[in-house]
Amino acid sequence: MGNCCESAANFFGPQKNTNMRVSLPAVCFVWQIAMIVLFGVFIRYDEESDAHWIEYRRENNITSDIENDFYFRYPSFQDVHVMIFVGFGFLMTFLKRYSYGGVGFNFLIAAFGLQWALLMQGWFHALNPETGKITIGVERCASSLPGYVIVNANVVLNISCFCFHISSESSLFPQCRDAGGSMVIHCFGGYYGLAISWVLYRPNLHLSKRHHGSIYHSDLFAMIGTLYLWMYWPSFNSAITDHGDGQHRTAINTYLALASSVLTTVALSSMHQKRGKLDMVHIQNATLAGGVAMGTAAEFMITPYGALIVGFCMGIISTFGYLYISPFLEKTLKLQDTCGVHNLHAVPGMLGGFIGAIVAAAASESVYGREGLINTFDFEGEFADRTPGTQGGFQAAGTCVSIAFGLVGGAIVGFILRFPIWGDPGDDNCFDDEVYWELPEDEETVPPVLEYNNHMIHKQQEISESNFSVEQS
Amino acid sequence: MGNCCESAANFFGPQKNTNMRVSLPAVCFVWQIAMIVLFGVFIRYDEESDAHWIEYRRENNITSDIENDFYFRYPSFQDVHVMIFVGFGFLMTFLKRYSYGGVGFNFLIAAFGLQWALLMQGWFHALNPETGKITIGVERCASSLPGYVIVNANVVLNISCFCFHISSESSLFPQCRDAGGSMVIHCFGGYYGLAISWVLYRPNLHLSKRHHGSIYHSDLFAMIGTLYLWMYWPSFNSAITDHGDGQHRTAINTYLALASSVLTTVALSSMHQKRGKLDMVHIQNATLAGGVAMGTAAEFMITPYGALIVGFCMGIISTFGYLYISPFLEKTLKLQDTCGVHNLHAVPGMLGGFIGAIVAAAASESVYGREGLINTFDFEGEFADRTPGTQGGFQAAGTCVSIAFGLVGGAIVGFILRFPIWGDPGDDNCFDDEVYWELPEDEETVPPVLEYNNHMIHKQQEISESNFSVEQS
Amino acid sequence: MGNCCESAANFFGPQKNTNMRVSLPAVCFVWQIAMIVLFGVFIRYDEESDAHWIEYRRENNITSDIENDFYFRYPSFQDVHVMIFVGFGFLMTFLKRYSYGGVGFNFLIAAFGLQWALLMQGWFHALNPETGKITIGVERCASSLPGYVIVNANVVLNISCFCFHISSESSLFPQCRDAGGSMVIHCFGGYYGLAISWVLYRPNLHLSKRHHGSIYHSDLFAMIGTLYLWMYWPSFNSAITDHGDGQHRTAINTYLALASSVLTTVALSSMHQKRGKLDMVHIQNATLAGGVAMGTAAEFMITPYGALIVGFCMGIISTFGYLYISPFLEKTLKLQDTCGVHNLHAVPGMLGGFIGAIVAAAASESVYGREGLINTFDFEGEFADRTPGTQGGFQAAGTCVSIAFGLVGGAIVGFILRFPIWGDPGDDNCFDDEVYWELPEDEETVPPVLEYNNHMIHKQQEISESNFSVEQS
Repeated sequence: MGNCCESAANFFGPQKNTNMRVSLPAVCFVWQIAMIVLFGVFIRYDEESDAHWIEYRRENNITSDIENDFYFRYPSFQDVHVMIFVGFGFLMTFLKRYSYGGVGFNFLIAAFGLQWALLMQGWFHALNPETGKITIGVERCASSLPGYVIVNANVVLNISCFCFHISSESSLFPQCRDAGGSMVIHCFGGYYGLAISWVLYRPNLHLSKRHHGSIYHSDLFAMIGTLYLWMYWPSFNSAITDHGDGQHRTAINTYLALASSVLTTVALSSMHQKRGKLDMVHIQNATLAGGVAMGTAAEFMITPYGALIVGFCMGIISTFGYLYISPFLEKTLKLQDTCGVHNLHAVPGMLGGFIGAIVAAAASESVYGREGLINTFDFEGEFADRTPGTQGGFQAAGTCVSIAFGLVGGAIVGFILRFPIWGDPGDDNCFDDEVYWELPEDEETVPPVLEYNNHMIHKQQEISESNFSVEQS
Repeated sequence: MGNCCESAANFFGPQKNTNMRVSLPAVCFVWQIAMIVLFGVFIRYDEESDAHWIEYRRENNITSDIENDFYFRYPSFQDVHVMIFVGFGFLMTFLKRYSYGGVGFNFLIAAFGLQWALLMQGWFHALNPETGKITIGVERCASSLPGYVIVNANVVLNISCFCFHISSESSLFPQCRDAGGSMVIHCFGGYYGLAISWVLYRPNLHLSKRHHGSIYHSDLFAMIGTLYLWMYWPSFNSAITDHGDGQHRTAINTYLALASSVLTTVALSSMHQKRGKLDMVHIQNATLAGGVAMGTAAEFMITPYGALIVGFCMGIISTFGYLYISPFLEKTLKLQDTCGVHNLHAVPGMLGGFIGAIVAAAASESVYGREGLINTFDFEGEFADRTPGTQGGFQAAGTCVSIAFGLVGGAIVGFILRFPIWGDPGDDNCFDDEVYWELPEDEETVPPVLEYNNHMIHKQQEISESNFSVEQS
Repeated sequence: MGNCCESAANFFGPQKNTNMRVSLPAVCFVWQIAMIVLFGVFIRYDEESDAHWIEYRRENNITSDIENDFYFRYPSFQDVHVMIFVGFGFLMTFLKRYSYGGVGFNFLIAAFGLQWALLMQGWFHALNPETGKITIGVERCASSLPGYVIVNANVVLNISCFCFHISSESSLFPQCRDAGGSMVIHCFGGYYGLAISWVLYRPNLHLSKRHHGSIYHSDLFAMIGTLYLWMYWPSFNSAITDHGDGQHRTAINTYLALASSVLTTVALSSMHQKRGKLDMVHIQNATLAGGVAMGTAAEFMITPYGALIVGFCMGIISTFGYLYISPFLEKTLKLQDTCGVHNLHAVPGMLGGFIGAIVAAAASESVYGREGLINTFDFEGEFADRTPGTQGGFQAAGTCVSIAFGLVGGAIVGFILRFPIWGDPGDDNCFDDEVYWELPEDEETVPPVLEYNNHMIHKQQEISESNFSVEQS
């Protein structure tokens, strides 16, 4: 997300819009062929999607086909799918002449990103050291879908960076729990995007300001996106949490936090405007902050009212960010944050990380039960002697690392992108579908009455001119 | 639903549009804080979403995590979610300048309503008398979602009234089966809304008639809403029915009734117009009547062709209502039913209640099996000696009570709302987004050719004027 | 699909648009009553949706309600539902004045088609010879949903033909595996539609060319359709495959093939245009070709990279078809393929059939496991001694039969439709909502500035005329 629209354009249409006809197909073909080769070498079906499942089932005393992971995960997986393709895609259509780009480039990047993330996350998390293979099923697919979210400035560099980040975090801070990705996705991704954007500052971007702003129907298309993101966020956070109570609790907590942040977003949005009118930008974005902030803590026993409190605060903080902090950052730091990454991802993600740390540190056997505690935080194997306090410390440290990696990684990638080898759409072409899409002539915007007008005007002209000539003669 | 758009505006923008900046944020904050406090006091996780699930599972001999209620209910729960936020939201966009309000206020009210309904329904149905707590999981969330549907004129009063209604019905008529809410939701809610609307009659509402009516694209957005309501209605009716055959049969019956009502709706809509053209209002609404009417009977053994017959009749009755009854009511009773609540909810809901009574009364051991009969109608515990005939009588009585409660409750709430302490949007501002939303300038509606026109006109003017002056001189 | 819009219009509005008021309601009523009677005679609940389920469960040692087929199939069933009603419906809105027809007639035909397909498929596949009844549950509903896809020129004839086709294929080539319908749905349906279209050639269709072409927002509505088709195609292909690994593997394979075809579609679309711009028609259609081509092979062990390769090729072939083959067919064979059936269904479906044959022939015990092989290809009962090689041969033969049946059946139906007993919309009315729908006045397209213009023009006119008169006087 973030300025992903711009960035996609950036990447797919290099060299001042000139030879997109060569570069875009070349990139697509090379990438896709590379994917095929790498999938051929590394990727295999896992036990639950392989035809050997029947034998696996028998050996593992699984009584029914319904216990195949497919039935635990597939509905949530499809919901996350909808969030990414419809949710993000249509949320991007709010710019009045960037609807095709918003939906279309989102589609393209996501289609590539999911393959790449499957591979990269697989390398770091699911590579079988004996066979040298990564085995995939619906859980792995679900867990790599959000990887796409990070894909905002430059696909390859980004996902590599994201995966490097994940792997470092995994090894530095093993067993940080972060199912919904407050830390790893939103906090890291948010600061990463902001750092890139800051380094890539385009002093003349105001030239394409005329393409900013929305029109009546484009904001309605964007609401399709928002609503799907909002509705399916519980599925996003719960997609890869533990079977049973883990998924159940995560969904309910996220759901309550989201509901709560709607009310405070509306309140703040209305308070700010002189006549109390609501601003679509806030409704489209800040209402989601509750879900972002619950990415880490939702699987813990945060309690239902705890979830409401988190949503309450996040609606306020995020709307406040749109009202005051973004303009401030643009003014002082020259930070161009078209989509409000700072307010929807960076800050709520960071706070979500710390909330997760606090809730983890406060865990106790009386609340979770002895087995529940072990199960929720995976206090098994080498972590068998961890205490909730230690876990909380690791969670907090993981959040700090996410911020640091985001800022440093983003700055590095930003500098790489400033090398003149990368193309650029001209500053005045940013956010204009005209550059990348064959557009219909849109004659409908000239309704019949207008043609009549034109006709009349010409007639007028003739009359006037004849008047003129009459007079002159 | 009903005139929920108007009502939301009504409530959120009191005092003649003036101080919405104060009242809307105040209401949101007070409500949300009250929710947090009440949730803190009353709401806890249930066994299936609590971390003690592992122990609970062992104690209850549950063999697999897949038997957690989450996996029975969550897909249907998400479908109902989509119905409420996307379905109702976009169905409301058919008014040409009320799209933001339709989607946005629906979003706000639903986000609040779900919290309130969780609490109120919990008090009456799920309060543990020993601990004084309400335990929630995905089933409770799903069963309170429809509570939002009732939220049409005044949120707090309404849901209170709704819950009072439910509790009275529960105690007066224990064990009325009504999973999809034909009686409790549609019939009660429909007559309730109509009664309020009748009491609140605004003689000058015709001043905002200019905002009525739709435009080409607003009707297309509304079709998004209709289709989602139609597709997911089987999930709505089956969301809280019995595990296993109960959910299965409910979904199939609702599905068939819906399919059938599409055909008769199209038939009647076409018959009415001189040249056989179809009317979008009927397609958007009456096609759903089959689902409304199956809210009670769908979980019974109504048989597949029985479901088709119900849908057949409902498509006819509902379209007939839009064509003749609504205009009649508006003329004789001064009833302003902008959204057609009478034809889509009140009448099909009432009929659905009676259909449920008949099907229940006709139940027999040969059709249901001995255990099936007990299981379907819950003839256990204190109801162990009930017969299908008695059950049918209770169902019919429950429907009558729903109508009475709806009409009386609505009238009372209507009179309360007429007190001058409540604000009002001016009559001429109803259904106008301009009052509540910051709107984009929509310059696109002035396509380039127009600017040229303007230019030409001014040129013309100058020419003409110069002509004039030439002549006059 | 295909030219379904045209065909629906064709069928529902016979006799030169004149007496639609009689014919459309008559058809709807007669059909629906026939359905009720036939359902009454033939259709009953199956074991899993019948109230006897509890006894059935006990007798069959089913340990939990969660093993009811409902929980295996319902989420996928709902996804397919969305594909058909929202996906196809909105994909059809790309024509600028055919949005209502695209969504509305799709809605009507699907609602009828699902009942008819339930019956016809039931007769050939699920008729219990002892009781003379067809028993239905969510699996049967899911498997008959795609039957609608075939409903493109004439509903009754078509589905009959489709079912005749299925039954012939079933008896000629028993145990062809084709869960996602590459052969039976896309290949047969595609060639069938093309043959009808070829026979029904309307030399004057160019008269309605003015209705072709899209506008900015209609293409965005169409993208809603595309995205839902794309996202839920894995559910479509896996809806009726085997429980457990079958559904799991099918979903993953389809998913990967779809992702891959997005990239090559974009590549080819961009390569074709002089400045590298993308064409919405390709993005809306060819991106789905990967899913079509995996309809047969997805449930086999095609391997993840195999799926990527299929998607890679299909994106190229389908886009190539839109760019060069469709114009060529239109020119040489006078084939009017408005929706691109040839490129999205016929060719990818045919290739998908052959890919399935190859993958089946290449199956081995080492890859599938002994039991996996038997389970995947149903080598049981009378087929217990089949080898993968034989199976591959049957698959290939089944594909050829599909093509032949499609072409011959389509030609026959086309000739039947040319009899003058069927009505026709006038050639210049094809694809015009005006003929079938009451349209809003759409005054919004006359923004205030225009009224001002009109006002000015009239003023001008008066001035000019007064000038004239002044002069003349």
